[in-house]
Formats: sequence, structure tokens, C-alpha cells
Amino acid sequence: MWTIDDGALEPIAVGAGILGTGGGGNPYLGKLHARRCIAAGAVVAVVDPEEVPDDALVVSVGGMGAPTVGVERVMQGEEELVALRALERHIGRRCTHLVAGEIGGGNALGPIAVAAQTGLPLVDADAMGRAFPELQMDTFSIYGVRPTPAVLADPHGRVALFDGIADAATLERYARAVTIQMGGAAGFAFPALTGAELKRTAIPRTMALAKAVGDAVLTARARLADPVAAALGATGGRRLFAGKVADARRRLVGGFARGELRIEGTGADAGRTLRIDLQNEYLVARTDEGEILAVVPDLICLVDADAAEPITTEVARYGLRVVVLGIPAPAALKTPEALAVVGPAAFGYQDLPFAPLPGRYGGDAGGRHAAG
Amino acid sequence: MWTIDDGALEPIAVGAGILGTGGGGNPYLGKLHARRCIAAGAVVAVVDPEEVPDDALVVSVGGMGAPTVGVERVMQGEEELVALRALERHIGRRCTHLVAGEIGGGNALGPIAVAAQTGLPLVDADAMGRAFPELQMDTFSIYGVRPTPAVLADPHGRVALFDGIADAATLERYARAVTIQMGGAAGFAFPALTGAELKRTAIPRTMALAKAVGDAVLTARARLADPVAAALGATGGRRLFAGKVADARRRLVGGFARGELRIEGTGADAGRTLRIDLQNEYLVARTDEGEILAVVPDLICLVDADAAEPITTEVARYGLRVVVLGIPAPAALKTPEALAVVGPAAFGYQDLPFAPLPGRYGGDAGGRHAAG
Repeated sequence: MWTIDDGALEPIAVGAGILGTGGGGNPYLGKLHARRCIAAGAVVAVVDPEEVPDDALVVSVGGMGAPTVGVERVMQGEEELVALRALERHIGRRCTHLVAGEIGGGNALGPIAVAAQTGLPLVDADAMGRAFPELQMDTFSIYGVRPTPAVLADPHGRVALFDGIADAATLERYARAVTIQMGGAAGFAFPALTGAELKRTAIPRTMALAKAVGDAVLTARARLADPVAAALGATGGRRLFAGKVADARRRLVGGFARGELRIEGTGADAGRTLRIDLQNEYLVARTDEGEILAVVPDLICLVDADAAEPITTEVARYGLRVVVLGIPAPAALKTPEALAVVGPAAFGYQDLPFAPLPGRYGGDAGGRHAAG
Repeated sequence: MWTIDDGALEPIAVGAGILGTGGGGNPYLGKLHARRCIAAGAVVAVVDPEEVPDDALVVSVGGMGAPTVGVERVMQGEEELVALRALERHIGRRCTHLVAGEIGGGNALGPIAVAAQTGLPLVDADAMGRAFPELQMDTFSIYGVRPTPAVLADPHGRVALFDGIADAATLERYARAVTIQMGGAAGFAFPALTGAELKRTAIPRTMALAKAVGDAVLTARARLADPVAAALGATGGRRLFAGKVADARRRLVGGFARGELRIEGTGADAGRTLRIDLQNEYLVARTDEGEILAVVPDLICLVDADAAEPITTEVARYGLRVVVLGIPAPAALKTPEALAVVGPAAFGYQDLPFAPLPGRYGGDAGGRHAAG
């Protein structure tokens, strides 16, 4: 067991921002919210997945919505807690542990806030090892955890509870439609899973990874060392491209931010242009010569060149000097059953095979999944 | 108390079809479904609202969707029952009485089917006295019954439960979004109200009215009398226009069927053209000279000229010989608070004042509302 206090929120936000691959909700808003919930001196207990009893009732909480909206329609702070309480009431049993569904972006911070609000322990794990745009794109769902009952809550205490839905893709459609009606952002609580299911399906120790990445970056900044190199060291990633953002196009389609970035190379990459496709997160990085540098589910992360500050899709803009990092996805995202849900074809790239980046995910210290 | 048996379904379907003002779901599909649920010899008990105890738990059930879809995506027969059971489970109490939310169209038949499936008594009342396209357009909501908890169910047993929503217009937005994702049609159970609330807000004896209208039409047909005159006699309506459908335009917008009909006059109306605007139901009837013959919430009903067969918006087509009936709305729909929700302005006709048709609603034998 370890603990998260007020001072751990900053590195977790930085690390989660990098692991968010441009999405997952703005980590700075998430940090501000979590800071309101953790009183000075208070701590959140974080337990390793292996410490969770098989019969525990673990609930994943977070925020759903398009990042472009999330920046303006900030969570009020009670949505996730309201959703959790409605889910508990429906199940007829109290939650014993919280877990993040998505370690990337602001959704890493939401469960910390709810843990502080409730006093519940937080499991050091998540179900993506990064961020993804849709609900069914998580290892809970991929490895057979039933997605419902599931609850969404809006800032006015209104809740929508879904039940009897066996496939997470259908839940995604229903919940996305309600989220849009809720103003584009909602708190969620789901799935509820047993400790045994958690240990079988979650990606372990990703909260610790987020904190380690953030600690490395912040320490490098303080010592005037190279924060980008520090981020690469902590994540196990590699430098794919460096340059200036020349064009950033985004539009909101069906509750998602879609678009593309063009980055003109500088330094060793001078004379080349990189195009990055995005759908809430960065999906494909390819050069103007057609070379694919990285593709989902591997992590494509934009950071600013000086401070390794993560650049989310909604703040990427003309003129920013950036480095594009490529981080190998966790093994659990690279099995055949996972690639069917989170591989290139699942995002509409039918003709783009998944060619994994070499190396291993920073926190991939051994889950129970087959190696990718 | 009276009873509905298998033989009562045909007249109720005809009467509900006329009162549906073109919408409310196809009554013939509703009838076929109810017939499957009422075994030969079985009956459904129908009680007057005044017989319902103040502490009864009354639940309204029906179908939600666009009629244009409803014709193709027929209810499977369990959606409303699944929704009712999920609502009871959430409330923690069994329903004691069922009631129709909407007497017009197929939604008059759904509660009969569920009453047959469950053995529960049906209250002789509804909350519209006709059909309307949106959830908040009912007297339960207009006169202060809280709309949630509310449940939608799809044909696969998937449910969406809404709670904490104080205004029915918000529930309408959330539920409509899910209904579209459910394939355009869903069963619903809501609101749950006490017997006291029911007596204060419902429009009484509309199930009996639907049956009386259908009986009058069917009897006239059998006796080779004038079924249209019989319908007018039973409803308290008047003949507004007679002619042939010259043009029927419909499109599905946001889950609603919108469009207009043009009817070229025949007989006494020869040389004139009537235009009827529709949004699931017929809303405004005006001549090409600009004379408004009737406007919502008064009932504008199309029937075929020979048999007084109701013509719903999705089956109105070129060449049909029709009579347009105008039936005064129930008094409960004509109070200032009701007109704010179901008057012309609520449908976008800001400059069209409500000028009530003379006469009184067929079943308006004295509710508790102020007279319109």
C-alpha cells in the first residue's frame, strides 16, 4: 500500500497527461478538482491489485465526454460520487474499492477525488493504460466483465442508470447519447466488478506509473535537466519526431473531437512533416513520405519540447514546439481480442496493420495477460 | 368497474386511432400485441379514477418513438413489462394500478397488454386525451407529478433508468436520445404516481371514450350507416374539411416524423386546399386562403371518407379520400399552464393564438380541472 496526498496530485496529473495521448479529459482540471477533495494532511490509500480480496466490490468512476466540451463544461465535483451512490443503491451493496477506468488524462484524477470524498481505498490499476475515446475500449470489457449496471450523473444530480446490457459497445451508444444531452460531460460509475475480476482484467500499477512519470519530469525541470528525456526514461518510450505545430484541425462529431495535426519537423526532422490523426486521442502518426511511425493502441504522446508538458488535443495549436513520443502499449492491449477492439481497424483504419513499437510499457511489470 | 376482453380491442383500437390525431403509434400493431396478451376468455379490469385509493401506486406504461419507425420496428411485447418491473425494483414497491399516458393511437393498447400480462387493474383515464409527440406534454407533468424515476426498455431486455429529473422536458431529451439508440422505439414505465395524484391530474374516462367512439364507428359500418357521422357524434367533434390527399411529405428529424399534408377539397370543399402540418401528430389545419380551421391542442383527426378508418401520419398518402375532423380538446389541456406546454407556441407557432373549437370533448364528463 502507498498513499496519495495533496502533493502527489501534481506529478500524477503530469504523468496522466502524458499517458493520455492527447485525451482522457484535461488533467489540470482534474487535478484542481481532486485538490478540492483532498483536505490538507489527508491521504488516499492506494492498494496493489494483488491485495484486493476476491469478493471485493470494486467500482470504476470517471468522466465521460468530449475533451473539447470538457474544457468549458467542467465537472462540478459531485457527478462521480452521485453516480457511485446510485449504482450502490441499485446493486444493494456498498462499494469496497475504487479504480480508475482510464489512467490517461483527467480520468486518472477523478477516482482519487471520489476516494477522498468517500474514504474508500483506490486500486493501483486501470483498464486502458492510456486513454481511449469509447467505453468498450477497456480491458474490463475486452476480457469479459459485464458493463452494466452503469450510471451516468449530470451536475444537477440527474442520473441515468443502464442495466441488462451485455456488450459495452451498446452501452457506449446509449451512454454517449445521454452524455450529449447532459451538456457534453457526465460523471460515470461502472463497471462494478469483483476483486477476482479486477485481478484478471485490469492493467496493474498504472497509478504508480503515472506518478513516476510525473515525478521524473518535474524533477528534471527542477534540476534544469531534460524533461523529455526523463519522460522517455520513465515510460519506456522513444522520441518519434520533433517540430512545430503547423496546422490543427478539430471538429465535434457525435460527441467526439475528431481532426488532425500537422507538425513541421525541426532539428533532425527538418524538411519532413508529420501528420497525426486524432479522435479524442492521437491515433496514427505518419510522415509525409507515408511512413507510419506509430499507431494505436501504442501511445502517441505530444509534449512541449522544453518542459515535457503534455499537449492534449484541445490545446494543440499553431506554433507550439513539440516532441512526439511513442510508448509501447501494455501487453493486455496487444492480444488478438484486444486489437479487435482497440487496434487500427476499430478506428476505421481497415488497411493499416498494427506494427508494435519495440520495447515495453513503463509500468508493465507483469499483468496476467498474454504478452503482445 | 368494467372489463376489456378480446372483443373490446377492435373498437378501442379504432377509437384510439381517431383520438390519436395521426400519432401515438399505430393502433393496429398495438391491437395485435394486446390480442396476444389477452388469452381467450380472460378480461382486464378497468376501474374509474374515483375508485382508486389515494395511496395506490399507479404506473403509466407505453411506447416511445417515431411512428415512422414504429411501423417497422414493432414492439416485441415485453418492453413495457420489463420497464415496469425495473421501475418497481427501483422504487422498492409493487405497482397496484396501470394507466395509459396517451389514449391516442397504439399507446392506448400497451397498458391493456401489460394489465393482461400482470393481472393488474387498469385505470379508465390517461394524461393527454389524445396523442402528443413529447413526454412533457401530458397532464401528469403539467399539473406537477414528478416525472422520475422513469424507465425505458428495448427488445433485448436492456433498460435505461432515469432519476433525479424534476422537469419532464429534460427527461424527454434524455429519453429520446436513448430511444433513438434503441432503434427508434422503446417501452416505457413512468411516471409512478399515487392514487391521489392520479385523481388530481389525469383526464378521466378516456379509455371508455375510445371504446365508445370505436363502437359507434363499427356499428355504423355494420349497419351501412355513416361511420364518419357516428365518429362525430361519439367524440363531440365537427367536420372541418373533406377531400383527397394531394401531397404527403414526411421526414424523420431527431426521432420525430415532421412534415405536411395537402388535401384538395371535394364536395362542399371543392376548389379549396387544406394544408395540415404534422409533428408525429396533426398540429394545424389551414386553408390555402389562410383560414385556420383548427389548431393544437384541439384534435385534428383524419379518417377515410367511407369507413371512418383513422389515417395516421405514416400511412397518409396520395389519393386517399379523407374527412378531417375537429374535436375540442379536454378542458385540462386548455388552461393557461397547459397551453404553455401543448399550445401552438410550444410547437413553434409563436404567432398563432389558440382559438378553441366550440363544443366539448366527448369524454369530458367533468374532471377536476378548470374549464377551458
